[in-house]
Amino acid sequence: MHALMKTQATSGASLERPPVPEPGPNDVLVAVQAASICGTDLHIYSWDPVMRERIHPPLIFGHEFCGVVERVGSEVTEVKPGQFVSAEMHVACGHCLQCRIGQQHLCQKLEIIGIERDGCFAEYVKIPASNILPIDPAIPRDYAAILDPLGNAVHAVLAGEIAGQTVAVVGCGPIGLMSIQVARACGASAVFGIEIKPQRIQLAERVGADAVFNPKEADAVAAVRAATGGAGADVVLEMSGNPRAIEQAFQMLRAGGRISLLGLPAEPVKLNLVDAIIFKGATVQGIYGRRMYDTWYRMLSLLKAGRVDLEPIISERLPLGDYQRAFDLLAKGEASKILLYPNGTPK
Amino acid sequence: MHALMKTQATSGASLERPPVPEPGPNDVLVAVQAASICGTDLHIYSWDPVMRERIHPPLIFGHEFCGVVERVGSEVTEVKPGQFVSAEMHVACGHCLQCRIGQQHLCQKLEIIGIERDGCFAEYVKIPASNILPIDPAIPRDYAAILDPLGNAVHAVLAGEIAGQTVAVVGCGPIGLMSIQVARACGASAVFGIEIKPQRIQLAERVGADAVFNPKEADAVAAVRAATGGAGADVVLEMSGNPRAIEQAFQMLRAGGRISLLGLPAEPVKLNLVDAIIFKGATVQGIYGRRMYDTWYRMLSLLKAGRVDLEPIISERLPLGDYQRAFDLLAKGEASKILLYPNGTPK
Amino acid sequence: MHALMKTQATSGASLERPPVPEPGPNDVLVAVQAASICGTDLHIYSWDPVMRERIHPPLIFGHEFCGVVERVGSEVTEVKPGQFVSAEMHVACGHCLQCRIGQQHLCQKLEIIGIERDGCFAEYVKIPASNILPIDPAIPRDYAAILDPLGNAVHAVLAGEIAGQTVAVVGCGPIGLMSIQVARACGASAVFGIEIKPQRIQLAERVGADAVFNPKEADAVAAVRAATGGAGADVVLEMSGNPRAIEQAFQMLRAGGRISLLGLPAEPVKLNLVDAIIFKGATVQGIYGRRMYDTWYRMLSLLKAGRVDLEPIISERLPLGDYQRAFDLLAKGEASKILLYPNGTPK
Amino acid sequence: MHALMKTQATSGASLERPPVPEPGPNDVLVAVQAASICGTDLHIYSWDPVMRERIHPPLIFGHEFCGVVERVGSEVTEVKPGQFVSAEMHVACGHCLQCRIGQQHLCQKLEIIGIERDGCFAEYVKIPASNILPIDPAIPRDYAAILDPLGNAVHAVLAGEIAGQTVAVVGCGPIGLMSIQVARACGASAVFGIEIKPQRIQLAERVGADAVFNPKEADAVAAVRAATGGAGADVVLEMSGNPRAIEQAFQMLRAGGRISLLGLPAEPVKLNLVDAIIFKGATVQGIYGRRMYDTWYRMLSLLKAGRVDLEPIISERLPLGDYQRAFDLLAKGEASKILLYPNGTPK
Repeated sequence: MHALMKTQATSGASLERPPVPEPGPNDVLVAVQAASICGTDLHIYSWDPVMRERIHPPLIFGHEFCGVVERVGSEVTEVKPGQFVSAEMHVACGHCLQCRIGQQHLCQKLEIIGIERDGCFAEYVKIPASNILPIDPAIPRDYAAILDPLGNAVHAVLAGEIAGQTVAVVGCGPIGLMSIQVARACGASAVFGIEIKPQRIQLAERVGADAVFNPKEADAVAAVRAATGGAGADVVLEMSGNPRAIEQAFQMLRAGGRISLLGLPAEPVKLNLVDAIIFKGATVQGIYGRRMYDTWYRMLSLLKAGRVDLEPIISERLPLGDYQRAFDLLAKGEASKILLYPNGTPK
Repeated sequence: MHALMKTQATSGASLERPPVPEPGPNDVLVAVQAASICGTDLHIYSWDPVMRERIHPPLIFGHEFCGVVERVGSEVTEVKPGQFVSAEMHVACGHCLQCRIGQQHLCQKLEIIGIERDGCFAEYVKIPASNILPIDPAIPRDYAAILDPLGNAVHAVLAGEIAGQTVAVVGCGPIGLMSIQVARACGASAVFGIEIKPQRIQLAERVGADAVFNPKEADAVAAVRAATGGAGADVVLEMSGNPRAIEQAFQMLRAGGRISLLGLPAEPVKLNLVDAIIFKGATVQGIYGRRMYDTWYRMLSLLKAGRVDLEPIISERLPLGDYQRAFDLLAKGEASKILLYPNGTPK
Repeated sequence: MHALMKTQATSGASLERPPVPEPGPNDVLVAVQAASICGTDLHIYSWDPVMRERIHPPLIFGHEFCGVVERVGSEVTEVKPGQFVSAEMHVACGHCLQCRIGQQHLCQKLEIIGIERDGCFAEYVKIPASNILPIDPAIPRDYAAILDPLGNAVHAVLAGEIAGQTVAVVGCGPIGLMSIQVARACGASAVFGIEIKPQRIQLAERVGADAVFNPKEADAVAAVRAATGGAGADVVLEMSGNPRAIEQAFQMLRAGGRISLLGLPAEPVKLNLVDAIIFKGATVQGIYGRRMYDTWYRMLSLLKAGRVDLEPIISERLPLGDYQRAFDLLAKGEASKILLYPNGTPK
Repeated sequence: MHALMKTQATSGASLERPPVPEPGPNDVLVAVQAASICGTDLHIYSWDPVMRERIHPPLIFGHEFCGVVERVGSEVTEVKPGQFVSAEMHVACGHCLQCRIGQQHLCQKLEIIGIERDGCFAEYVKIPASNILPIDPAIPRDYAAILDPLGNAVHAVLAGEIAGQTVAVVGCGPIGLMSIQVARACGASAVFGIEIKPQRIQLAERVGADAVFNPKEADAVAAVRAATGGAGADVVLEMSGNPRAIEQAFQMLRAGGRISLLGLPAEPVKLNLVDAIIFKGATVQGIYGRRMYDTWYRMLSLLKAGRVDLEPIISERLPLGDYQRAFDLLAKGEASKILLYPNGTPK
């Protein structure tokens, strides 16, 4: 089959012809219809230091996709060939403490397909049957290829109360933009975006932010406070990973509020814990992956009901062979979500 | 002043001229702009048995309203004359266990203005300052007169998870209709109305129900199950008070789901607790009043954000003097919410 | 092997010599060291109407036990021969909505070992590997044979706040007695037992109830109210299944409190929903099985820490061959938990 | 009356003879029986930089006490002269967002008696009636003088699940020691203390820690991991305020666990948010004050039930006149809780 692979421990990637994977007794083989590029994939492609220890070439990367079931293993009863599916690409061990108490997304032995195992930038991908999610035909095909980041957004937004709450989304990359939509769909009374890039500011407004504040032009903390009667936002969703923005994110949170951290800072962050958390009685949550599979149930229900419009977040649709252009656009910050089609033209 | 009063322990009511109430040091006097009639008011007017022990004429009744602050007591600092306000008409004692642990709405010595004290079917009403809620000018005036029932709906809908959940609203009177809107605004993935009266079925569809099932025409339990992939609804909101409907409400709830009871059955209800609650692992909640004042904060935020459109639920606007016509319409089931204007014409 | 079987659709049971079960690839074969008799087993033995539709002889019954792993299937990696284990005997399908969102105990296709499949009143029992729980050696062997009912108690007690709360346990059979201990161990400020049988009253006092009220001798509702400053209990755990007791259980609950229902009434129960639930703002929970496996984690931690002493609840220890005496004692209400030893003498 | 006052903006304090305070209409005057010295009081006494902006002499300081009601204001109905009481010394405004939604402990205009108003190191102290807590006679008198810090501990311990959980208490000063006791009383399956001072290590063992780890002698993070099967503690309570200890506190928390921060670091803390919070899916809580008055209800219930023994935590009992000795002992780290008796001898 055709697959985009990391064959060497240097920057870049190449189209290769590895064999179609062989599903084990509990696995499912899926013919990939559309895949999407995550920020992590860009780190892998660019061979950023953070990925060098983790990735062991040769590897087919990619972990956001949808497709049609081609074949199932001997013990698989619930998934059938021909089904249109997506998948949770975080594979939990099922045996550790976290797996046993409903926190599989925090499994002690988590493996990620596309990182520790061959992924979905290929014509076929092998997935454990329990990680397969059938997709309702009412959901647009391409949306099913970006459920991984949408799940991050849903996980973050629904990690606490949201209805009737004011929300600040710090960082309006794809997950931030999705969070704005999900928060609105779930009853947030006002959603503020915090972003510095003009293109993202426009997108944030387009997907429904009540206001977008640019910290380069004015004091975003003061702006959020002013827009919330002086109190600060009930909920802050930190999606930027920028240390300075994180500091401000805590400052714009109201006393007694909730802040969910998803963006990954590249270095330790200095925090005034007394003002930022303790005296504020704040609740801070680390958000990683998606709850298995409560997040998926909520997300697919919202999509099926048409409550979230992901179209504005998809900026390009390319055949898999155009991968270089795709990674270049992302590296230059000129794209949002890019879809790749391993089996030919976009539609 | 003019006031609609219950002067005798018989059916009916009369327009009287009692003195304007005198606010105590911690009270506020409000000039009523619009009041609304609750089902309870109809019970009082009709002198139904359930009210005979509780109401002691002479009494100005009415407990849903909005208005402008006329005068404040000597100890009142936060409320100012001229403010546009509504009020929580359940007055909590502040001293009992429930009041001390954040459950003031379940106060052991609760008194209701319009039931135990003179109410708002009058030109002026006296309210403890702590029960006053300033209303944002962005909220339409007449909406501010029906926050009491809207608060019931918000309290019920937000008493558990709602985002990405399927919801069945059993009984589409005013609070049921409001619940449909609030559930949709807060991310319910599908909202089903259960109702038998044609006018209410139409209203339920108009305010956004995905489907309305009429138990007189088909099996509503089977319909909800079919619409939820066989599982039953994640959330059921019981707003009818009808014993047979309550039984069905439990049957249409999925295992592990949540049912909130607000409708008041006139008699004990026979329940198969094993199937309805225990084996189902159900969570059942009694919903009474509004949380003080968390429900108000959420409700006012949603209204200010324009997420809920109450206009379809208001069926008539009348001067206070037309009270007989108003109560007649309600008794015949030909009205939804009726607004009364003590100080003259509707607008 | 030796096994106690239901071979015919009549009352009674018989010792038989079926073959040792053959574990499938994902199963574990356990040599049973101790088993315990549940109330359900007595219903099966007596061939009560409620069981006649559900049980299909021939069947090895029994679903509370501990033992040592004898052999594991080809795909089993985490469980090893020689391990001392108990098991969750409710087998969830893993695929339905409830299984996918963390409510496996409410699986739509739940099967119970000892009801729908051959159980543990035998020398060997076959269990899916995922249902096996390794038992810490610090936990007394015989306690490991009654984790099923202890898990019911832990599930009920920890289904809401318990620390610093007053608790009424209605019905002091084995699960009620365990609940008294668990509630105390988890910080309940006062635990009241409600029971009519003298032997159980004594046991309730022995395991730590602050007071036991006998509704045959005095007004238990009034007694609980008096003992809680008039408010009623913060938490009520209904373990009796008796319709009259259930009615009282609701009456002794304070406004804003939580009642967990576990006892199974044999018939529908008439409830005044207005007073019992709605005006009271009560939270009612159906308790079924044990949360998989959060309840187990808590339960095993508490046992390992020595916080719960189950010895007083074990009334008899008998070889499996003495099963008739065991069921007779239970039928006459003269026993609490009885342990049976399939492989010979009690110790 | 006699009172210990800060009369000048320098270190130290002096016994003065200010007039007995005059209660307003909603106030209560209490004759102080016993007061206790908080770490904050030592900062005030020593005139540490952190207090210089906040304290405006002349001021009677002190905010932990119990006493007998001497006199009540004209509008006070629930509190009576002669009652034995303690008080919440954080006075909330009652009007801000937080006050309206059940978070009075995070009031935007919070004032503390003993900081912004005259406190309890005196024969008499004036308290708003709503802040008064009657104390059950079953609770030892001196315990009623240290409910402020015990409330901090109860607030922290009960800010999430505790039953059947492993708990690490980082820093075993008075609040840490109380937390060990409260955690045990509320069903923690194991409680580990982390402390470097020998005297506190002994006290931690005495009040019930299962083990105490000294980071000066061995790797406390490794020790907690080893004691929890490698996973880390389910719950971490940070009571030290030491930046290095805070870093370790996050490291010893298991993925999916909860950490409550109460200790106040004197400077910003550098945290690796990715490992400490985000990938760990941790929940971090700022703990400030006590929930009004849910924490008090739980705390008083636990004390009345005899679940917590505060005696080991009280190290000295002195007449108010010996204040210099008291502050010297605390400054040298040679005391735990010290009680002062404004009206003469300790008992």
